[in-house]
Amino acid sequence: MTGIVTAAMLVIGDEILSGRTKDKNIGHLADILTAIGIDLKEVRIVPDEEDEIVSALNAVRARYTYVFTSGGIGPTHDDITADSVAKAFGVPCEYDDAAYALLAAHYARRELEFTEARKRMARMPRGASHIENPVSVAPGFRIGNVHVMAGVPSVFQAMLDKVVPTLKTGLKMLSATVPCALGEGVIGGPLAEIQKAHPETIIGSYPKFGEGKFWTELVVRARSPEILEAARRDVEAMVSALSADA
Amino acid sequence: MTGIVTAAMLVIGDEILSGRTKDKNIGHLADILTAIGIDLKEVRIVPDEEDEIVSALNAVRARYTYVFTSGGIGPTHDDITADSVAKAFGVPCEYDDAAYALLAAHYARRELEFTEARKRMARMPRGASHIENPVSVAPGFRIGNVHVMAGVPSVFQAMLDKVVPTLKTGLKMLSATVPCALGEGVIGGPLAEIQKAHPETIIGSYPKFGEGKFWTELVVRARSPEILEAARRDVEAMVSALSADA
Repeated sequence: MTGIVTAAMLVIGDEILSGRTKDKNIGHLADILTAIGIDLKEVRIVPDEEDEIVSALNAVRARYTYVFTSGGIGPTHDDITADSVAKAFGVPCEYDDAAYALLAAHYARRELEFTEARKRMARMPRGASHIENPVSVAPGFRIGNVHVMAGVPSVFQAMLDKVVPTLKTGLKMLSATVPCALGEGVIGGPLAEIQKAHPETIIGSYPKFGEGKFWTELVVRARSPEILEAARRDVEAMVSALSADA
Repeated sequence: MTGIVTAAMLVIGDEILSGRTKDKNIGHLADILTAIGIDLKEVRIVPDEEDEIVSALNAVRARYTYVFTSGGIGPTHDDITADSVAKAFGVPCEYDDAAYALLAAHYARRELEFTEARKRMARMPRGASHIENPVSVAPGFRIGNVHVMAGVPSVFQAMLDKVVPTLKTGLKMLSATVPCALGEGVIGGPLAEIQKAHPETIIGSYPKFGEGKFWTELVVRARSPEILEAARRDVEAMVSALSADA
C-alpha cells in the first residue's frame, strides 16, 4: 500500500446533528483531499459531548494517516474540542503562550477586553502546534496526526489552505467519467463484468435523477493512467454498444 | 431517560467521500428527526466496502433506537448495501418475492427487459420488510431497527416520508433562539454561568460570519416549555445588559 495516504474527518457539533446548521465542510475537505491524492475514508459527525469526541477521535486517529476536525474551538462553554482532543491524547489542555500573546495583542489593537471567554481560544493540548487563522486570528492546532480546525466554513477553508502544504500526499487517484443515457438496470450486468476484468480500478455507477428521468454517471478510478484508460475504453465501448441496441 | 428516542445515520458511498457528490440527505434527515422528537446522535459516512459497512452498522445499531442508511441499493456491482446489512445481521441476502414481483411487473409495463442488474434490486436480507418507493419503484427495506434507503435525495426523501409514521417519537426537544449582535468573546463567560444555572437545558452558541463581521446565534434547548422559557429569559436579559454596555 505504498503511496496511499488516508484520512478521516470528525465533524463536531450539536447544531449539525439537529439540522440547524447544514454542514459545508465535508464536501470541501473531500474535494481538496481528492485533488491532492489523499483518500478520505471515513467521516463521523458527533455531538458536543466529551466522551463521544474522545472515543471517535481515538478510533479514527489510530486507523488513518491524517484526521481533520471541524467545530467546537470557539470561546463558549459548548466549545469543548480542545479539551476533548487533549483527553484523547492523554495530555493537559492549557494556555498556549504564543496563542495567548497573539489573541491579547489582537484584542488590545481593537480596544476590546480580553475576556475569560476569549482566553479560552488560547487553550490547546500540550505539545500542539498552531494552524494559522487568517480570518479571525484564533488559531487551530495540530497534535500528532490530528488537525483541529474551526466549524465556520470560511475559517475552516482558510485553515485548511494553511495545512495542505504540510501534508504528505499520496499517489493521486485519477478518474474518468463516461456519460450514459441508459439506466443502471441496463448497464449494471456488463459493468460488473468490466469491473471484474479490471481489478485495479474502482468503477462506480451513480444514478442521477432530474427533470423526470434517470440517467447514469459512470466513473472509473485508478492510480495509473494506463490502467485507467484501458478500463475507460471498455466502459465507453459497452455504453456505445448498448445505446445502439436501445 | 424515558421519552428519549435516539438515532444514527450511515451514509454509504465512495462518491460522497471523494467529493464528487455532495450529500443532501444528512441535513434533511436531521431536520425531520428534530421535528418529530428523535435525537440524531451520530452520523458516519463510509465507503462502498463490505467490512466498513458491516462494522459501522453493527456499532451504531447496538447503541441507538433507530438507524437510517442512505446509498448503495441500486442495480450495479458497487451497490452492496443489502448484502452488507444482511451480513451485519447474520442472515442470508436473497430475492424477496414481493419485491421481485413488483419490479417484474414494473419493467413489463414499460416493456423493458428485467435484467440481472435490475433483479439485484429485489434482493434484501431475509426477514426484512419493504419501505415503499413512490419515485422509482425499487423498495428500500427495514430490518430490526435499521432503515435502508436510497442515496438519490428525491428517493431518500420519499422513502423517509413512508418511514416517519412508523417510528416511535420522543419527547420533543424544544428550542428558542436569542439573536445576539455581540461576539462569542463577550458573551461566552456569562453564557457559561447561565448554562450552569440551568442544567436541564442545552445552550449552544453558534458564531456566524458574513459581510465582514461576526455575530452570534444563541440557542436554548430543553424538553419542557417552562425550563426552556426560564433559561431563554436569562439569556435574553444577559444579551440586553451586555449590549447596553457595548
